[in-house]
Amino acid sequence: MPRVHLTRRVHFSAAHRLHHPDWSDERNREVFGDCSNPNWHGHNYELDVTVEGELDPETGYVLDLKALKQVVEDLVIQDVDHRNLNLDVDWLDGTNPTTENLVVAIWERIRPALPPDIQLKRLVLWETPRNRVEYEGR
Amino acid sequence: MPRVHLTRRVHFSAAHRLHHPDWSDERNREVFGDCSNPNWHGHNYELDVTVEGELDPETGYVLDLKALKQVVEDLVIQDVDHRNLNLDVDWLDGTNPTTENLVVAIWERIRPALPPDIQLKRLVLWETPRNRVEYEGR
Amino acid sequence: MPRVHLTRRVHFSAAHRLHHPDWSDERNREVFGDCSNPNWHGHNYELDVTVEGELDPETGYVLDLKALKQVVEDLVIQDVDHRNLNLDVDWLDGTNPTTENLVVAIWERIRPALPPDIQLKRLVLWETPRNRVEYEGR
Amino acid sequence: MPRVHLTRRVHFSAAHRLHHPDWSDERNREVFGDCSNPNWHGHNYELDVTVEGELDPETGYVLDLKALKQVVEDLVIQDVDHRNLNLDVDWLDGTNPTTENLVVAIWERIRPALPPDIQLKRLVLWETPRNRVEYEGR
Amino acid sequence: MPRVHLTRRVHFSAAHRLHHPDWSDERNREVFGDCSNPNWHGHNYELDVTVEGELDPETGYVLDLKALKQVVEDLVIQDVDHRNLNLDVDWLDGTNPTTENLVVAIWERIRPALPPDIQLKRLVLWETPRNRVEYEGR
Amino acid sequence: MPRVHLTRRVHFSAAHRLHHPDWSDERNREVFGDCSNPNWHGHNYELDVTVEGELDPETGYVLDLKALKQVVEDLVIQDVDHRNLNLDVDWLDGTNPTTENLVVAIWERIRPALPPDIQLKRLVLWETPRNRVEYEGR
Repeated sequence: MPRVHLTRRVHFSAAHRLHHPDWSDERNREVFGDCSNPNWHGHNYELDVTVEGELDPETGYVLDLKALKQVVEDLVIQDVDHRNLNLDVDWLDGTNPTTENLVVAIWERIRPALPPDIQLKRLVLWETPRNRVEYEGR
Repeated sequence: MPRVHLTRRVHFSAAHRLHHPDWSDERNREVFGDCSNPNWHGHNYELDVTVEGELDPETGYVLDLKALKQVVEDLVIQDVDHRNLNLDVDWLDGTNPTTENLVVAIWERIRPALPPDIQLKRLVLWETPRNRVEYEGR
Repeated sequence: MPRVHLTRRVHFSAAHRLHHPDWSDERNREVFGDCSNPNWHGHNYELDVTVEGELDPETGYVLDLKALKQVVEDLVIQDVDHRNLNLDVDWLDGTNPTTENLVVAIWERIRPALPPDIQLKRLVLWETPRNRVEYEGR
Repeated sequence: MPRVHLTRRVHFSAAHRLHHPDWSDERNREVFGDCSNPNWHGHNYELDVTVEGELDPETGYVLDLKALKQVVEDLVIQDVDHRNLNLDVDWLDGTNPTTENLVVAIWERIRPALPPDIQLKRLVLWETPRNRVEYEGR
Repeated sequence: MPRVHLTRRVHFSAAHRLHHPDWSDERNREVFGDCSNPNWHGHNYELDVTVEGELDPETGYVLDLKALKQVVEDLVIQDVDHRNLNLDVDWLDGTNPTTENLVVAIWERIRPALPPDIQLKRLVLWETPRNRVEYEGR
Repeated sequence: MPRVHLTRRVHFSAAHRLHHPDWSDERNREVFGDCSNPNWHGHNYELDVTVEGELDPETGYVLDLKALKQVVEDLVIQDVDHRNLNLDVDWLDGTNPTTENLVVAIWERIRPALPPDIQLKRLVLWETPRNRVEYEGR
């Protein structure tokens, strides 16, 4: 059977700051610029979750989109939407919430929750409409 | 010579329903939800057709975009635009028109119609701005 | 207090055909073209609902967006999403579902359901990303 | 001479929370929901600034877009971009940063800074791609 | 009958430069900056054409969108698409092709070509996704 | 450490024409159609620059986006924005500025300017919202 990629786009709004706890304020400001503002800033994030699997000849689905949406909603969106990524999310504890670190952490959340015949293929995470990261696992 | 990917985005509007003919209405409703509505529903589909080939040093083209557009128009768009995907399209006959089945069927239509030195690289088909499938062949 | 416009964008996917019941098939085809296909076609519609009201100095809201979203969801979206606009929607019964007729019918649904100090200002309804109608009431 | 509207779209990313200082946490949570999260959340805002004026027959401009961009940059963007709207912006001091209050405050910043023959016509402020407010002054 | 606005979005790609023939090169550069480059530059323009009229109870149309599209195609797009706005368009002869001058000239082309019961309501012309002008006639 | 892709989207507006200097005007017109207009036409180009590298555990960055933006700005945008691609850009001298040739030339500009541990992964160049090319190097 053909293998097809299926993508669901979701979004969330969150506050964050970029900050290395062992560095001085000056060093943080030098490396992270305005992104290190101690009073936070925030973004509307968009996340594309792409899975790959064999087309099921009976349903014509790779995976029921509602099931994919539910996994992402339960394991990611309800934890990060309208939250502070530095303070409110236990699975980001101790992580500097750059877009790169964030996409890797989301990968680790979603991958184990998918059915065994479904492969997590790619995550794309937009911080703004002009900046994004993409991760395909190790 | 460099190999470059060339993509043309096209769109069509169509009605469909998801439905397995051997299943009861209850089973269809259970698996496909609102998508199994017997009176149909519909979408504005967007389709990205990506081909790969060697850059022709004389024209600076991989393939004339007008030629690519014409193939997709003749073999796909004129058959599906403002049509019912379950009833009106002979090359979808007997196919449950999920986005996955649809993208594979479109691949089979376009691939043989391309010039021999041009490879059909990837199709991306959006059913809504948040849901899409991607196919790169078998 | 300042008067501000507040807009919520919602979407729905539906099937329809354009058809005048007193006309011959030929006349329908002549006037409505492919839009009169007897087996239906469909669209992803986007709807912008704009209300106007005084800024409430206590909440800083014109209207709670969740309340606006709920009205549109209950009175419009749950009736039309994944439905056939000619067959499945009682408040469109006997209406030829052109975008113009549709936007006026949606206006008549939403306007009486808003709080008395909130004015329905404008509806914009996209049938495709390139075609839309706008209605501001009589 | 014809009067033409000229619009420049700008963006900024900021953190905020909705919060009434005289209310209990419970009351704030009840009215503002997740938007009252004490640890903040944030957005990518888009702002359309529309001015109206007479077409200058010599330049063919209503207003030099670079001049309009500069006013908005100097009086709004540099104060709010990568900032916390509750804590970092003196001209929002004491304001609950709902989108409605924000658009009115931005209006009061920009209007006096425009040349006398140029009218501030309309501000549209998107908090997310689906939620926006519009203000045309009192 | 209700009065409804109907909008068709079209696009064209063109070269231009901003230039006042009576000014020195220095003065042109000073006022128009990079836009005065003697070797031209260009844009993908998007144009929203909005007409207003009474809803026809028989067709459910304000105006057949195909007819509106044809007027804009014949009178505007075929003259400006893949053309130089300073050199190739007789109805722009002697006009400095700022977006403001362009939108007024397009208005004068389209308005007389519409049926007598149809009012040209508004033109919106994007030069880039962030810059646009809007014109509603004198 | 995980390897992550980082993408920055930039834009520029330029004039060009497609033209083979050894061909007659008739041959140029036959192959390139309206794109060969001797008086030029133009586009708003969008360019996605994607680099790949190891996530730096100290900063949480693959590469500072500001550094990536600066490379693209200095080596590409300042040379092509508001310019004529056939006449004004020395590193395009003698190149027929098809989108394919353009994306390869931009690749050759950016690749040597990146840090040694950063790989230029992919360029995507949009000539219009519906036409684009993609290049991943030889």
